[in-house]
Amino acid sequence: MPEFATPPISPFAIQFDAEAATLTPEGPTLTRRMSALDGLFKDHDAWQQAVADGDPVVYSVQSTPVPEVDRELPQSITSIEAGTTAGEFWMTKGHQHPNHQGEIYLALHGTGGLLMFDGTETQWIDMVPGTIGYIPPGWAHRSVNVGADPYKFLAVYPGGAGHDYGWVLEHGMGKRAYAVTDGFELREF
Amino acid sequence: MPEFATPPISPFAIQFDAEAATLTPEGPTLTRRMSALDGLFKDHDAWQQAVADGDPVVYSVQSTPVPEVDRELPQSITSIEAGTTAGEFWMTKGHQHPNHQGEIYLALHGTGGLLMFDGTETQWIDMVPGTIGYIPPGWAHRSVNVGADPYKFLAVYPGGAGHDYGWVLEHGMGKRAYAVTDGFELREF
Repeated sequence: MPEFATPPISPFAIQFDAEAATLTPEGPTLTRRMSALDGLFKDHDAWQQAVADGDPVVYSVQSTPVPEVDRELPQSITSIEAGTTAGEFWMTKGHQHPNHQGEIYLALHGTGGLLMFDGTETQWIDMVPGTIGYIPPGWAHRSVNVGADPYKFLAVYPGGAGHDYGWVLEHGMGKRAYAVTDGFELREF
Repeated sequence: MPEFATPPISPFAIQFDAEAATLTPEGPTLTRRMSALDGLFKDHDAWQQAVADGDPVVYSVQSTPVPEVDRELPQSITSIEAGTTAGEFWMTKGHQHPNHQGEIYLALHGTGGLLMFDGTETQWIDMVPGTIGYIPPGWAHRSVNVGADPYKFLAVYPGGAGHDYGWVLEHGMGKRAYAVTDGFELREF
């Protein structure tokens, strides 16, 4: 085996606390501040203002030690803060899997949505604790917090699927979630 | 696209009730009675007697509509009844993925164990509600109910991994779980 190969991972146990939305042991945590979300929100000026106004954390992703390599099955918990930018609910960057493979999201806390786009059709799944959203291969996916609390969900995804964020910047997701008096509304571009 | 191709599955929501250990909508359910477990228990005569004595259900596996095909990510909930055969705790057949890929089990109810074997080394993970057992690619895996209640767990696995039950019949799992006064004990063959 060449020296640069990823060492095989051994069996191990992970403690999953659905209430606290934690996975132990922890792997890397990724934090996305507003400045990392260039091009996502419809209103670019409002986005720029939010970056200037303290550049808040929009979401974080905590993973386990399972590596993102082919044949492994990593997991992570994403927590999206509550907020809007020019009326548009805070959300993840969204991505397409360059190696098309399915993924599942299990909602743990708060009120969210799973927005999916296959290049033609947009689908939305309301996510409340206990809902599993099934993301079939070939569907770009983004999570949105449409509530007043942090929205948290567990993701399970094939380690070799990859993350193509550029696809979403180029093609969009078909719809956007805006705050309205009684909740949210999906609007086309 | 040829007519015999599996139609692509659309995004959809699954209701996961961790307390009741159910997934809705349901896909196929597989039920394994004692008679389906030929060659698994150490004591073949005791197994034969259990088949004659009413051939009880040992475990069942309820899936969702996500198909077991390459690139999809199916899920299922397995429920293993409490019981022993000549002192050996009831268990699943166990299998190896012919297409080596990782899998996760999340314990939901009862007290179980996740037995893994890579052909040389055996590993055991104690499974109680909230424990995720990580099954790396290349490790055969079997679940065992070592408690007095049904042991139930959620599985998430790549649809193209496959199930090789013959590998386990040929190679075994390295160890077996036997009932002792204060719980269970793992014994080598």
